[in-house]
Amino acid sequence: MSICILSGGVGGAKLVAGFADGYAPGRLNVIANTGDDFEHLALPVSPDLDTLMYTLAGVANPETGWGLVGESFEFMAALKALGGDDWFILGDKDIATHVRRRELLNSGASLSEATRELCQSFEVQLNVIPMSNEPVATIVSTDEGELAFQEYFVKRQAEPQVSALRFDGSNTAKAAPDALAALTADDLEAVVITPSNPYLSIDPILSIAEIRAAVANAGVPVIAVSPIVGGKALKGPTAKIMQELGLESSVHSIAEHYRDIIDGLVIDTADAASLNDIEALGIRCAVTNTVMTGIDSKRQLAEAVMGFAEQLAAA
Amino acid sequence: MSICILSGGVGGAKLVAGFADGYAPGRLNVIANTGDDFEHLALPVSPDLDTLMYTLAGVANPETGWGLVGESFEFMAALKALGGDDWFILGDKDIATHVRRRELLNSGASLSEATRELCQSFEVQLNVIPMSNEPVATIVSTDEGELAFQEYFVKRQAEPQVSALRFDGSNTAKAAPDALAALTADDLEAVVITPSNPYLSIDPILSIAEIRAAVANAGVPVIAVSPIVGGKALKGPTAKIMQELGLESSVHSIAEHYRDIIDGLVIDTADAASLNDIEALGIRCAVTNTVMTGIDSKRQLAEAVMGFAEQLAAA
Repeated sequence: MSICILSGGVGGAKLVAGFADGYAPGRLNVIANTGDDFEHLALPVSPDLDTLMYTLAGVANPETGWGLVGESFEFMAALKALGGDDWFILGDKDIATHVRRRELLNSGASLSEATRELCQSFEVQLNVIPMSNEPVATIVSTDEGELAFQEYFVKRQAEPQVSALRFDGSNTAKAAPDALAALTADDLEAVVITPSNPYLSIDPILSIAEIRAAVANAGVPVIAVSPIVGGKALKGPTAKIMQELGLESSVHSIAEHYRDIIDGLVIDTADAASLNDIEALGIRCAVTNTVMTGIDSKRQLAEAVMGFAEQLAAA
Repeated sequence: MSICILSGGVGGAKLVAGFADGYAPGRLNVIANTGDDFEHLALPVSPDLDTLMYTLAGVANPETGWGLVGESFEFMAALKALGGDDWFILGDKDIATHVRRRELLNSGASLSEATRELCQSFEVQLNVIPMSNEPVATIVSTDEGELAFQEYFVKRQAEPQVSALRFDGSNTAKAAPDALAALTADDLEAVVITPSNPYLSIDPILSIAEIRAAVANAGVPVIAVSPIVGGKALKGPTAKIMQELGLESSVHSIAEHYRDIIDGLVIDTADAASLNDIEALGIRCAVTNTVMTGIDSKRQLAEAVMGFAEQLAAA
């Protein structure tokens, strides 16, 4: 039985790590957001693919939320001294990932194939798949104008006020073939949407028509884990963006956002009072501890999601 | 009064450093070989420009003959672990030079302009100029087939037997405008050919018709310093290549090679016995110590070359 997980970067990667701890890697397919991808310093950078890969390889830097642990920054210091762009920080080892990806793409590999090769080198056994092999770019409309995702998120530190989001290229981009295969597998048991930012990280994935249709027609429970706990985002600008988009930062808003696509929503015990409200939307709701700290809490949340999926499948 | 110097990498850079020690930087224009340039890991690498720049900035690694002093190699180790190409070693700081060059070229700068900007960052005050802003690639015909320069020189460590050399692109490449300006300057006092490898490093420069013509018509003494001392090359494969091309590795062969282009040849005291032979070719000859060790011997050689130039100009 296979599990297909949709994920962005840091928050999503935590839950994926929980799945990796509790389930055989051969059962796990992770479709990653590539709307954050961009070409920087002539290198193809895929932040969410890399955060997933580094997290699953146990080499992610837990303090920064990006990059590799024990990283050095000789390159960045030298580049800065030469007047080069230094707003997006690339560690000396991290660059090797992007240079190797460049080599693989230049030699004709798809992003899926390049990702598979990189994951093998990092001894990541579960299947990390880009949502598409074609470019899809998240563009953020803000009070400072339209910003490419990394300009908004890294260069401007998510400070500008967001009025809208769009995903350039998603009208024509096809799903990566292995992403579609994961969503239509005969042995598919559940589709899991991680507590990544719904607007910045999950919507780009669902903006690809083939993926949205495959999730909607999965024929198995589709379960999201709320990124909002007690009205706040545990990390990142989710709550801030919700307010800027005129939404209440609540589990109810998350349920409404995913209403067309999910069968169940997992919310934190802090939000237990919202259970009836959510179920009134026609979405089943499970309450558990969703705050992931150590590996045990990550695995327990993964197991709670799958327990909920079994319950929904049996219903 | 200005001096125009033609140079390849390490050996040439030593004499250029001697000129930089003895003469005001505003008087010195160095035209560098770019036949070794190649795109590696999607980065534009210019080995001779960089060796000149690093040497003149005092940051060249004296032990390796390439790269920067005090360099770390985290990137290369990580790239190797990912299955990437590791036969051409790029240090963590060195990559910044190539990435910055990529940024400058991508933003529309010529190689001349990019070089000027990099030199400014490295506080190199004299004018380092690529021979051309268009690609010219040294191709080495060997007993292992045709090899791109870096494949021959670095990957195969100059081991294959050389039968011929050609410079792809030199038929159509124009000289860099500032290279031509340096060779046709009103205040030009001398043209100096450094003791770089004549076949691998100087011939690519002279393969550009505009440069060869400008040197031939310079109207000032053109002086080469022999890279052969006592029948041997002090460094690199010059003597080996001469033998493979059917030439005696002697100062006489060097004189014959440059016969059409030079007025004078500076040879080492070890070769003093060849003076009459060389002058019989119609080339004036000066004998001095050409083995450069510390900065004093470099400056003294530069001064000897310029003394010889004055003597020829007065004759």
